[in-house]
Amino acid sequence: MTQNIYDDEGFFAGYSRLPRSVDGLDGAPEWPTLCAMLPELSGRNVIDLGCGFGWFCRWARRHGAAQVLGLDVSEKMLARARADTDDPAIIYRRADLERLDLPASSFDLAYSSLALHYLGNLEGMLAVVHRALVPGGWLVFSAEHPMMTAPAAQGWIEADAGHQTWPVDNYLNEGPRTTDWLAKGVVKQHRTVATYLNLLIRIGFTIMRVVEWGPSAEQVAAHPEWANEAQRPPFLLVAAQRV
Amino acid sequence: MTQNIYDDEGFFAGYSRLPRSVDGLDGAPEWPTLCAMLPELSGRNVIDLGCGFGWFCRWARRHGAAQVLGLDVSEKMLARARADTDDPAIIYRRADLERLDLPASSFDLAYSSLALHYLGNLEGMLAVVHRALVPGGWLVFSAEHPMMTAPAAQGWIEADAGHQTWPVDNYLNEGPRTTDWLAKGVVKQHRTVATYLNLLIRIGFTIMRVVEWGPSAEQVAAHPEWANEAQRPPFLLVAAQRV
Repeated sequence: MTQNIYDDEGFFAGYSRLPRSVDGLDGAPEWPTLCAMLPELSGRNVIDLGCGFGWFCRWARRHGAAQVLGLDVSEKMLARARADTDDPAIIYRRADLERLDLPASSFDLAYSSLALHYLGNLEGMLAVVHRALVPGGWLVFSAEHPMMTAPAAQGWIEADAGHQTWPVDNYLNEGPRTTDWLAKGVVKQHRTVATYLNLLIRIGFTIMRVVEWGPSAEQVAAHPEWANEAQRPPFLLVAAQRV
Repeated sequence: MTQNIYDDEGFFAGYSRLPRSVDGLDGAPEWPTLCAMLPELSGRNVIDLGCGFGWFCRWARRHGAAQVLGLDVSEKMLARARADTDDPAIIYRRADLERLDLPASSFDLAYSSLALHYLGNLEGMLAVVHRALVPGGWLVFSAEHPMMTAPAAQGWIEADAGHQTWPVDNYLNEGPRTTDWLAKGVVKQHRTVATYLNLLIRIGFTIMRVVEWGPSAEQVAAHPEWANEAQRPPFLLVAAQRV
């Protein structure tokens, strides 16, 4: 079972204060890019894998989705997500994404934001999702970029005076990485970019677009504290289609 | 026009002494992986984009290719390639890969080893190659990995005592990088992994396999000096098919 760090008191309190928790999709700097990778949603069935507070589920409904199923492992997040809507076309369900069971050919879009890097059994989940999509259906996801998750010790280092750099090591050594982020001992799974893509291809997806996301010059001007994030991408975004 | 550094006296002399120049494909540690990404060659027409000394052209013929066209910008390399074979089914031609002109639907495989990161106009070349492949034809190439080409100053740094790390910065800042490798002022073009893949997709290729290559444990045991290369991939290998 995936570590359920989001139900840790301290983690949840910290996560709840992040801009993406307070302001929703508009508080996530990668959202405009991810949004542009989505197919037309009007009348479509959508599943959100790791829906958190449900911001995307509600957005999808506002943009015409017929039905939205939001899955998450965190009881605390689902409780808030349920409290934030009375839309009967949004269903929230607790689920361990590593042990998914979904009906075949039922969804037009599977969406996932920053959840897949927590999963040990990603291949199993992707196979279930592939089967649950209609032919031509889309999988659009973001994950921490493998350059982020690779290092044994994550953190910027001083390359020379006043110039910071991201130290990549262990990139080809896939597996769990334990970091302290909002709480101690958060376990993420490091996979290479190639592994993400080859898993998708092997399962039967066609890769439609890959984005190594970093903030734009405008975003850095508005948020100078993001300047380093433009040096190496914090997020990997992928759009793939079921063949 | 692409910088023709291979015809620089000092560069050529240095390059000629590399294991991959002396021992051919067997001197290139990524070759077994790249080789496994190739389609069956028997009776096929092959083009090698940046053929160098012609090692792959001769290998393709030994493995059943009907015709092989080797292109390179370097006169010195082509001279040696021509001297090394009398096979009439191998044709060597001088060409600037940024200004390619190829007949339509003429090749079953386009192969390229460590040449594409020299090209400014990669998109133009890929479009010509796509058109020159038969439907279902393959493009299989290696290039320096974007993590290699990204940094303003390429080179390992000491992260902490006895532990080296590769400093990624400027990853999202695409464009030329000037490095000193075998000669001063070698110009390479930095592109992200995403850019390589999205260019291919946009032109009409389907991504079939992506490898971020590093030496295996066995290779590091045999060549301890390669240990760092297992920390971050030096090469990106891609197999794609014309739709």
